[in-house]
Amino acid sequence: MEPTTPEGFKIAAAVAGIKKSGLDLGLLYSDRPATTAVVFTKNAFPAAPILVTREHLRNSGNTTRAVLVNAGNANAVTGEAGMNAARQCAAEMAKHLGCKPSEIFLSSTGVIGRPLPVEKIVAQIPSLVRTMSPGGSEVFSRAIMTTDTVPKVASASAGGVRMLGFAKGSGMIHPDMATMLSYILTDAKVDFATLDKALRYAVDRSFHSITVDGDTSTNDTVAVLANGASGIAPSPEAFTAQLTEVCQTLARAIARDGEGATKFVELRIEGAPNDDAARSIGRTIARSPLVKTAIYGCDPNWGRLICAVGNSGIPLSGEKVELFIDDVPLMNGDLKAASEKLNSKEVRIRVALHSGPGTATVWTCDLTEGYIRINADYTT
Amino acid sequence: MEPTTPEGFKIAAAVAGIKKSGLDLGLLYSDRPATTAVVFTKNAFPAAPILVTREHLRNSGNTTRAVLVNAGNANAVTGEAGMNAARQCAAEMAKHLGCKPSEIFLSSTGVIGRPLPVEKIVAQIPSLVRTMSPGGSEVFSRAIMTTDTVPKVASASAGGVRMLGFAKGSGMIHPDMATMLSYILTDAKVDFATLDKALRYAVDRSFHSITVDGDTSTNDTVAVLANGASGIAPSPEAFTAQLTEVCQTLARAIARDGEGATKFVELRIEGAPNDDAARSIGRTIARSPLVKTAIYGCDPNWGRLICAVGNSGIPLSGEKVELFIDDVPLMNGDLKAASEKLNSKEVRIRVALHSGPGTATVWTCDLTEGYIRINADYTT
Repeated sequence: MEPTTPEGFKIAAAVAGIKKSGLDLGLLYSDRPATTAVVFTKNAFPAAPILVTREHLRNSGNTTRAVLVNAGNANAVTGEAGMNAARQCAAEMAKHLGCKPSEIFLSSTGVIGRPLPVEKIVAQIPSLVRTMSPGGSEVFSRAIMTTDTVPKVASASAGGVRMLGFAKGSGMIHPDMATMLSYILTDAKVDFATLDKALRYAVDRSFHSITVDGDTSTNDTVAVLANGASGIAPSPEAFTAQLTEVCQTLARAIARDGEGATKFVELRIEGAPNDDAARSIGRTIARSPLVKTAIYGCDPNWGRLICAVGNSGIPLSGEKVELFIDDVPLMNGDLKAASEKLNSKEVRIRVALHSGPGTATVWTCDLTEGYIRINADYTT
Repeated sequence: MEPTTPEGFKIAAAVAGIKKSGLDLGLLYSDRPATTAVVFTKNAFPAAPILVTREHLRNSGNTTRAVLVNAGNANAVTGEAGMNAARQCAAEMAKHLGCKPSEIFLSSTGVIGRPLPVEKIVAQIPSLVRTMSPGGSEVFSRAIMTTDTVPKVASASAGGVRMLGFAKGSGMIHPDMATMLSYILTDAKVDFATLDKALRYAVDRSFHSITVDGDTSTNDTVAVLANGASGIAPSPEAFTAQLTEVCQTLARAIARDGEGATKFVELRIEGAPNDDAARSIGRTIARSPLVKTAIYGCDPNWGRLICAVGNSGIPLSGEKVELFIDDVPLMNGDLKAASEKLNSKEVRIRVALHSGPGTATVWTCDLTEGYIRINADYTT
């Protein structure tokens, strides 16, 4: 079933010929200025569309009328030419929508270091504007894919407020060519400070719980656009909960679509000194190649889990750690039963640390020969 | 050719039956107290032999008469029973050598979380003492192996001072079951402060340049024993240079023996803000699965290298980065020539950052299906 697009938004996609085949250009349009909060990559070399969009948000007071995204070319490490290319796309888009260039939000994903084919993008802008409609979510979700095997869409409706989210990304360990992009549209009335705080809270518990801090690509972007078209101003708590739910659904979809993955893994950390420490421990486990290969091999090798916990840099009492797969204890437990639990498409691991009240849930996937093949063969 | 053992040291190995087969117990003996400096794991759950050895070094004023190492069992996450097991081994070793238990240095490597078979170790102690000799280096180097495919020994002689080093380890990304152990014996006369400083300098430029800080196992140990038997006190500079050379040879041997590796990779970082920043950037590249799979696939995918540089958290000017494989420039370069250079057992990558005087060399290996197979099938 097609998810419902929030009030006042229109969506479109086009084939611009940047990728070898298929949809590769997408537009998210709001009929009024939408308050916009973002989390951008921490990579030291942010791509041109990020640098230009940062300028735009500063100049527009964090409001956006449209998001223009292309796949197939990251417009990253492209220098001044890349900046000009991004500015040209924004100017052309603004002209056709009758808004200011600073109200255009730009994203690119794809190969790094190649000139952006501006003319191919500009040629499709009239078609995007002509075809945009509330029903465009399916084509948009496909237009932003690169190595993704499935499109990723999530929606939620609560108290008259609608939310619709898109994401792309499938390189689990270091999103690179498989840059992570996500956009969440909502018709809630939310001021910038509340929106920004809600996004940071939601991202910590979703996208930052599938990728390790610092393991960012040049183009990673999560943006939420709130245009207020519903006329409803939800409480910050209700809005934050709704946004977190949508972000978590999208984040889990990314982990599930991890390159070469055969298993989806949920790590539940309990009893850490605090929530941040719990998340940090969860991420350290989630990025451990030895843990991920053991899960792939259905090997209940709990020494590797303990090692990963110990490598997180979080001080722990160390006196008492318990590990479970579903309800099966791992240390001094029934390893045959644990191995059977591992032989599943969905693996749930629980780490009980007995060092405080902190909890976190982190999602990842196993590490397989498929990952090696995909990434050894990716053509530059 | 058998390397020369420094004056005053004797070496032995035995089959204790801890591993399924082969040598699994080793002894390094000094006929006089040897000043001892160490770098231990930063893992939050250090193994029992590390905790006991820390006590010993405190009580003996950092002097050691013997190193007793077993493979096949890590004696890690074994609680109070593991501590008692370690103390029992030390007491028995000391009795047979006529020294204090606090002069015994203990190491264990192997599976985590299983009780140490003390009786098997104790039963072989008389044989170790009976057979120890200056010629024991070859059997010792084999006794400490776990998933290693080749023994790792390095020696150096300068100004009448001899140095002999051993190492084990082949799990490149997170040394885990493949704990990294290294011992360097020297007959130089060196006070503890100089020895400690020299070891930290050497380890930063060798073992810490193949493994990322924090990606430590419960048992990682590097120790240098200086017994002064040569009667020669080299200058701190000369001694540090000699120790660094031996450590680098051993570290490169570990990288070369990386699990499933088909290629040895040397990363040279130049023009970083300082040496520490250069090393940090080198390590970030060396741990990137996307870089390592690209090297495996002979894919000159320089976008991944740039991403990894940007992920190191080191602020860079970003205006000018150059990448080379041997002498072939990667960005705007001849990618066919670069791909041919990658199709080699030894790959040399140079990253020129133009952001300062800092340099570092880091060693790693490629990431292959072989790594997945070894680690998915390792039996707990």
